[in-house]
Amino acid sequence: MSERRGLLFVYTGDGKGKTTAALGLVLRALGRGLRPRVFQFIKHERAAFGEHRALERLGVPIEGLGDGFSWRSRDLEKSAELARTGWQRAAEAIASGDWDLVVLDEVTYPLNFGWLDLDEVLEVLRTRPRNVHVVLTGRDAPAELVELADTVTEMRKVKHAYDAGVPAQKGIEH
Amino acid sequence: MSERRGLLFVYTGDGKGKTTAALGLVLRALGRGLRPRVFQFIKHERAAFGEHRALERLGVPIEGLGDGFSWRSRDLEKSAELARTGWQRAAEAIASGDWDLVVLDEVTYPLNFGWLDLDEVLEVLRTRPRNVHVVLTGRDAPAELVELADTVTEMRKVKHAYDAGVPAQKGIEH
Repeated sequence: MSERRGLLFVYTGDGKGKTTAALGLVLRALGRGLRPRVFQFIKHERAAFGEHRALERLGVPIEGLGDGFSWRSRDLEKSAELARTGWQRAAEAIASGDWDLVVLDEVTYPLNFGWLDLDEVLEVLRTRPRNVHVVLTGRDAPAELVELADTVTEMRKVKHAYDAGVPAQKGIEH
Repeated sequence: MSERRGLLFVYTGDGKGKTTAALGLVLRALGRGLRPRVFQFIKHERAAFGEHRALERLGVPIEGLGDGFSWRSRDLEKSAELARTGWQRAAEAIASGDWDLVVLDEVTYPLNFGWLDLDEVLEVLRTRPRNVHVVLTGRDAPAELVELADTVTEMRKVKHAYDAGVPAQKGIEH
């Protein structure tokens, strides 16, 4: 008996690999003819990191919903508003059933800042169409989200090149 | 001062996301015009999982070097031989400098089974051309490998859908 159902993934923790693991799932889904779509809650709407260029080439919609580094913003109300507007778009994409895999990258930050309502996010996830996989990434995933999820991995930092003074490498880390 | 150098990544631990994080790095590298190449030490040479189909479409070489589930094989000597032959190919690819990013997926298994010589693998990594990024994945990464690496993440399983009786979902988990 092979049950076909959308799974809820959470990649959390302080280690590298959360966003890239979500991108890997996108790649895998694409190879199976599924339709993935990516929302990034912190990256700027005009971001053009490696993943944007590659996904665009593959025809996967990827949208930056933030203003870069929101938590350093001087206008927090504007950042919060961007997050809420972005969440509405993501929520509609999830509820539509038009996408087999929806990535909510770095969504834990606006959740933990209180910019998004956790209960509302949980409700959209809980009531989503049965076929829809959703992946949420970011540090400090709220306990209720972990509870609701099917598969949760904590990416734990063992060591990081940056701590040894090596700057971020283009094409690899952004 | 922006130092440009190849990094050594290790994704280890018992959680989901090790292979997919490596695939995400491939996607990101590709978007920046780098040349990635993937070796999978357990997957069969004729494997056609989601990632194979997607990477082939992107022109990224991906090779299965194993015979499926090597550790269940009845012919362990053959599995060991496959791993050693595969490693030679991977070592040449790393040493050639022709590839900016080389993924050694699930390489910790043949290492821990004693099929590959750890010192030899460490030597190839240590003496690789300066521009080459390498990503190694698999559970129980040897301590010497963690020591040599620049960035190490332990993917820790918090929960997994499979434990709740949900079978693996095509396009997402394989």
